[in-house]
Amino acid sequence: MAALTFDVDAESPVLAEGRRHAESAMAMTHQAFGPKVGVPRILQMLKDVGQPATFFIPGVTAERYPQMVEQVLESGHEIAHHSHTHRQAVHLTLDEERRDFDLAMKALGRFGITPKGHRAAMWQPSWQTPSLVAEFGLKYDSSLMDSDTPYLIETESGTVAELPPHWSLDDWEQYAFLPEPRLGEIIQSPTIVADMWINEIDAMRRHGSLFMLTCHPFLTGRAGRLEALRKVIETAADWGDVRFTTCESLADAALADPALVPAPLVPITVSEDLYPDY
Amino acid sequence: MAALTFDVDAESPVLAEGRRHAESAMAMTHQAFGPKVGVPRILQMLKDVGQPATFFIPGVTAERYPQMVEQVLESGHEIAHHSHTHRQAVHLTLDEERRDFDLAMKALGRFGITPKGHRAAMWQPSWQTPSLVAEFGLKYDSSLMDSDTPYLIETESGTVAELPPHWSLDDWEQYAFLPEPRLGEIIQSPTIVADMWINEIDAMRRHGSLFMLTCHPFLTGRAGRLEALRKVIETAADWGDVRFTTCESLADAALADPALVPAPLVPITVSEDLYPDY
Amino acid sequence: MAALTFDVDAESPVLAEGRRHAESAMAMTHQAFGPKVGVPRILQMLKDVGQPATFFIPGVTAERYPQMVEQVLESGHEIAHHSHTHRQAVHLTLDEERRDFDLAMKALGRFGITPKGHRAAMWQPSWQTPSLVAEFGLKYDSSLMDSDTPYLIETESGTVAELPPHWSLDDWEQYAFLPEPRLGEIIQSPTIVADMWINEIDAMRRHGSLFMLTCHPFLTGRAGRLEALRKVIETAADWGDVRFTTCESLADAALADPALVPAPLVPITVSEDLYPDY
Amino acid sequence: MAALTFDVDAESPVLAEGRRHAESAMAMTHQAFGPKVGVPRILQMLKDVGQPATFFIPGVTAERYPQMVEQVLESGHEIAHHSHTHRQAVHLTLDEERRDFDLAMKALGRFGITPKGHRAAMWQPSWQTPSLVAEFGLKYDSSLMDSDTPYLIETESGTVAELPPHWSLDDWEQYAFLPEPRLGEIIQSPTIVADMWINEIDAMRRHGSLFMLTCHPFLTGRAGRLEALRKVIETAADWGDVRFTTCESLADAALADPALVPAPLVPITVSEDLYPDY
Repeated sequence: MAALTFDVDAESPVLAEGRRHAESAMAMTHQAFGPKVGVPRILQMLKDVGQPATFFIPGVTAERYPQMVEQVLESGHEIAHHSHTHRQAVHLTLDEERRDFDLAMKALGRFGITPKGHRAAMWQPSWQTPSLVAEFGLKYDSSLMDSDTPYLIETESGTVAELPPHWSLDDWEQYAFLPEPRLGEIIQSPTIVADMWINEIDAMRRHGSLFMLTCHPFLTGRAGRLEALRKVIETAADWGDVRFTTCESLADAALADPALVPAPLVPITVSEDLYPDY
Repeated sequence: MAALTFDVDAESPVLAEGRRHAESAMAMTHQAFGPKVGVPRILQMLKDVGQPATFFIPGVTAERYPQMVEQVLESGHEIAHHSHTHRQAVHLTLDEERRDFDLAMKALGRFGITPKGHRAAMWQPSWQTPSLVAEFGLKYDSSLMDSDTPYLIETESGTVAELPPHWSLDDWEQYAFLPEPRLGEIIQSPTIVADMWINEIDAMRRHGSLFMLTCHPFLTGRAGRLEALRKVIETAADWGDVRFTTCESLADAALADPALVPAPLVPITVSEDLYPDY
Repeated sequence: MAALTFDVDAESPVLAEGRRHAESAMAMTHQAFGPKVGVPRILQMLKDVGQPATFFIPGVTAERYPQMVEQVLESGHEIAHHSHTHRQAVHLTLDEERRDFDLAMKALGRFGITPKGHRAAMWQPSWQTPSLVAEFGLKYDSSLMDSDTPYLIETESGTVAELPPHWSLDDWEQYAFLPEPRLGEIIQSPTIVADMWINEIDAMRRHGSLFMLTCHPFLTGRAGRLEALRKVIETAADWGDVRFTTCESLADAALADPALVPAPLVPITVSEDLYPDY
Repeated sequence: MAALTFDVDAESPVLAEGRRHAESAMAMTHQAFGPKVGVPRILQMLKDVGQPATFFIPGVTAERYPQMVEQVLESGHEIAHHSHTHRQAVHLTLDEERRDFDLAMKALGRFGITPKGHRAAMWQPSWQTPSLVAEFGLKYDSSLMDSDTPYLIETESGTVAELPPHWSLDDWEQYAFLPEPRLGEIIQSPTIVADMWINEIDAMRRHGSLFMLTCHPFLTGRAGRLEALRKVIETAADWGDVRFTTCESLADAALADPALVPAPLVPITVSEDLYPDY
């Protein structure tokens, strides 16, 4: 199992660190590279290799770059929910989170998109997020990390498939460098990253794991990194037993799998006696 | 000499940074991967390569994941003491440390486990820790770094073997990435890590050192990293002169070695005149 | 398209962090290596490989190292504007930025230099910077990151070509280490960096991108790094289809290209309702 | 030209961050590895490869580990001045720096050692340090970074040779990891480090530079790193044209070289008008 996902964050994660960062022309243009140059280039590459993908697009990014959304729509790839503002749900009240969730639904809706899945901004959902995902009629979430295969979460609003991502299958930790706000500090060679991901997908097929790769067009849209990603995809496709699918397909398969039993997501409770520091 | 050790920390090091982090579903599930997926996978790999290991399990983790403890017990590997809460002893009073130590003894005791050794959370013992280890009847500690061969510490409660670990033989520095709390910032390629550790164990056998490897199931339980560790073990085992043993065996050998003379652990005293800043 | 650029910062970025750092003989001599040793060595290497380059020199650096400026002038390479003090324009008022811009014009002017282009210190321009560049009669800027090919910015004072740089084509992130002020934390092997840049320029020629490399003589002037850069240049030159040119030539070509349509640089506006944190 | 230098810091740089760190048994034993295990191992390796070296030993370290000092003395290698407490001179008053300098002279003097050279703690001298070096009768300093060949500094107390070190030729940035105090964050593979240094010394001989390598026994005394250093030395020695010498020999040659003209070390002065932030 393998999925190629692209989080088209654009300016949103930078603004989530403080709207003052809109004053930085460098930071803003650095992020704008994603929808302006990265997405068209990634779409072409996906066409070259003939593989489907899922694009998680925050509402504010869809609103600022409607042409980019149309390009993705025309390409036939899946578009999914990635919050409206890219603020982290873990730091919002439930009301704030619901409002942000709803704004994103409406922003995508204006393009005729009914998202089937959701990924929390910065992979920082609240414990209530899966319930919200079900409440809004979506099938899956992709934010939690306690497995590397799909599983089912039972919520008061219905069952949701969880498609677990992981920091090690994300281009951000490898490539992001932005000094202010400090959103990344290391620039790794794409050669080393491609080698790491090829080894990972090889190990994952041995273990029956889900290779859930997360890339960001403002990062992987750069030429050398795009070619490194192309190499990862082509290498895995050549093995013959790795199949890249959209997240929606993965969710459908998980929801239809009789071997998967839905279970509630239970928050961790902590004793103040054992952990006195808040 | 070589020992494979696994610190099954799960949520404990994150909660030790502040119990508010229990509100982060990402951080909690990120850590839960260890006992849920990492440990069974590691146990299978150890069975494949036919090598023994030592699992250091904090008390709170044993209580939250009893099935995981049973799996390790059934596999025949050693289970040892790794504090109750994973708070750093260096920042506790002696009474707090003793209480935490005792809670961990009781938590393991409920599984019928009488630990023979101890490793301080975050390798941050107090100067009194070896004495506490002896007071509770354990044979060894594995937290201090002034040697790379076993040595003996004389305490007021008896002699304790010290089995020195080191940051360079730990998967945390290579793989851990968690933005909040900020418990790691780099994700290294497992290929490079395996190469580094193979070179290290090769150098260590030339120097008669103890290869004391520390891995964490929430990190090394990931597929590519597990395969990298498998390669390290298989490569060293193929040389023929490297023997992997449990920490308890190493401690027994050290305590029985007439060449090793117990000496007290003497705290460093510092002149306020030379170092005015506290 | 490819350009070799050298930002001869010397002490200026350190002093921009606070003039107290002038008290650090290490930090000051660390930076002085650039104009004293790095620049002559780089000029010799460029002569060896027979390629043109552009040197961005802050005004205060030109004033402190006049002999270095003369050496660059004699070599025939382009000299361009890099602010006077290397303070970040994003944190200055427009008046302060204009004054700093003007001081740099005068500092270079005393050498008979009329710069044709500008690069913002730390790639941190204000949204008004391109307008200022036009106001002072320059043709191009090299600070924004929303493309990897030249484009045209329409300002109230005329049209300016933008020649986009990027953090991944900068030696700072790979080599800079300075603990106080903390201006860099990693020292990468030049072998790995050369490999990364060779792969990048190769990918960029496939994508028709501009390989805009930024090096700093206080970093790349070191022997091993200089030889790594030489290897990058020689490798690309051997391919036959990569042409290294000055930034001025790139700007002239962009300004004369009928396919490029000037557009204003529009600042991002942010809703306080969506992003309450300033 | 090449010099192998070892800074036997032991606990001193940790205590310089605050004497409270003496409460950390991990940090203290981590540092004690240097004099206890690292130095004897390094001495044996130097004997194996038949090369001379210079050991910079802080006064407090000499006092705490007299046997280690005797071992270095017996081996015939040079012992030089590395401050008494490892506090950074840049943050001391001149009186405090002189007192610390004097305490170190006396500490070494009790072993019969008259140091011929000095290296500032953390390479953080004051602008007065070279003058102090001359005042105490030493011939050289090794702390400044504006060249990579020896040069001469004229002071009011006489002429001093400067033997420039650099962060890129230091094992600290590659290997040091200590979370509290935070004295290092990365653990690089010794294979990559050896490759980097071999390339560096190769480039340096082409440029006539001084390969001034700085290693720390608490870091490079570890087995895999020691073997990596051995490989660097053996590789360079095999070339035939690289000669390893003590710092004292380098200083003598520089002081006797008619081509080198002593010049004063001139502090940088900064205009408050240009750099308003202190």
